[in-house]
Amino acid sequence: MLISFEGIDGSGKSTQVVLMRRRLEEAGYAVDMVREPGGTALSERIRSLLLDPDLEVDSMAELLLFSAARAQLVREHLMPSLAEGNVVLCDRFFDSTTVYQGAGRGLDPDGWLDAFNRRVTKGLVPTRTYLIDIDPEEAVRRRMAQGGVAGRDRMEQAEPAFYTRIVDAYRALAYAEPVRWRVLDGLRPAEEIARHIWADFVRLAGHGRNTPE
Amino acid sequence: MLISFEGIDGSGKSTQVVLMRRRLEEAGYAVDMVREPGGTALSERIRSLLLDPDLEVDSMAELLLFSAARAQLVREHLMPSLAEGNVVLCDRFFDSTTVYQGAGRGLDPDGWLDAFNRRVTKGLVPTRTYLIDIDPEEAVRRRMAQGGVAGRDRMEQAEPAFYTRIVDAYRALAYAEPVRWRVLDGLRPAEEIARHIWADFVRLAGHGRNTPE
Repeated sequence: MLISFEGIDGSGKSTQVVLMRRRLEEAGYAVDMVREPGGTALSERIRSLLLDPDLEVDSMAELLLFSAARAQLVREHLMPSLAEGNVVLCDRFFDSTTVYQGAGRGLDPDGWLDAFNRRVTKGLVPTRTYLIDIDPEEAVRRRMAQGGVAGRDRMEQAEPAFYTRIVDAYRALAYAEPVRWRVLDGLRPAEEIARHIWADFVRLAGHGRNTPE
Repeated sequence: MLISFEGIDGSGKSTQVVLMRRRLEEAGYAVDMVREPGGTALSERIRSLLLDPDLEVDSMAELLLFSAARAQLVREHLMPSLAEGNVVLCDRFFDSTTVYQGAGRGLDPDGWLDAFNRRVTKGLVPTRTYLIDIDPEEAVRRRMAQGGVAGRDRMEQAEPAFYTRIVDAYRALAYAEPVRWRVLDGLRPAEEIARHIWADFVRLAGHGRNTPE
């Protein structure tokens, strides 16, 4: 089972991945956790290119680099891991490309990205995607509070309107594909969000059907 | 004017790029010469990933990395250079992806690559493409003769059948698009090939229409 976590930087998405991992392990699941871009030697090398503030990276090149890292991740890591029976938690997956490069950078005017993403992942689609949803203003506030260092890499040098496009695009994806997506209010305490996610996962996994949330 | 040179490694293609540059400069043209992948800081970093023999690189990731390097090259380097009026000589361009990743690695069963390549290059297509054509057996012979070092990078660890697919795919492309392609016999001496290319270029550029080849 492949489960992805999506949301704007500062949404608390990565915290949820860690909390989910802990719950899964406590429940006896074999868990594999990856973040994008990353998870293989090549993908980590690509990550370092994408985060290098001194490199000029065109939007299309950016899209293709994220996709290259993902293609490698799927074939070298995710497919074998899923075949072994792990529950795989992805901190971002192809929806991030749809949202950041497609909507954010305006690279999907004719809707080619959806088919392209499936080609990159060999048709692998998450069973469930959790969107940790916060307003763009809140995202900016949280990022400021984290201080200087966190704000310096190349992907994070975007203007406020960019974040608004991202948030809107995430919500539109979740709205369009309600069977796969669950939207969590990122303003709630992390433990509360984690409880909601866990309750949903338990239903999804077919266990505890009689357990009230 | 954008002119690309294609051919299997060992065909003598890069020699022809250099000879063509010299002739163009002697004739007073402003010339810009690039090799793929490369030509920008990002593209050179991608090149080093692609040539690293210690990195596991899946075929699709490879295709996407070449394309990322090309997207950056087109937008950061080629388009401005062409706008300045340079004659740009490309040692490989998107046809290499069609041939190596598409035909060679079998990644284009449904013909998606053509539209994808145009997207990557923003529709930029060479005015002329010179194929330096040699048989796969000759390519292997030449590569052996070059000795050990040249044979060690990751892209060059392919089996003989791979080279046959490459040569066949190049010939098929040239056959399908005869207005753009010119095929040169790579077994002829380099200076002779260069003369043929130059004669063709002179006609193409609209100069010397009365000059016999």
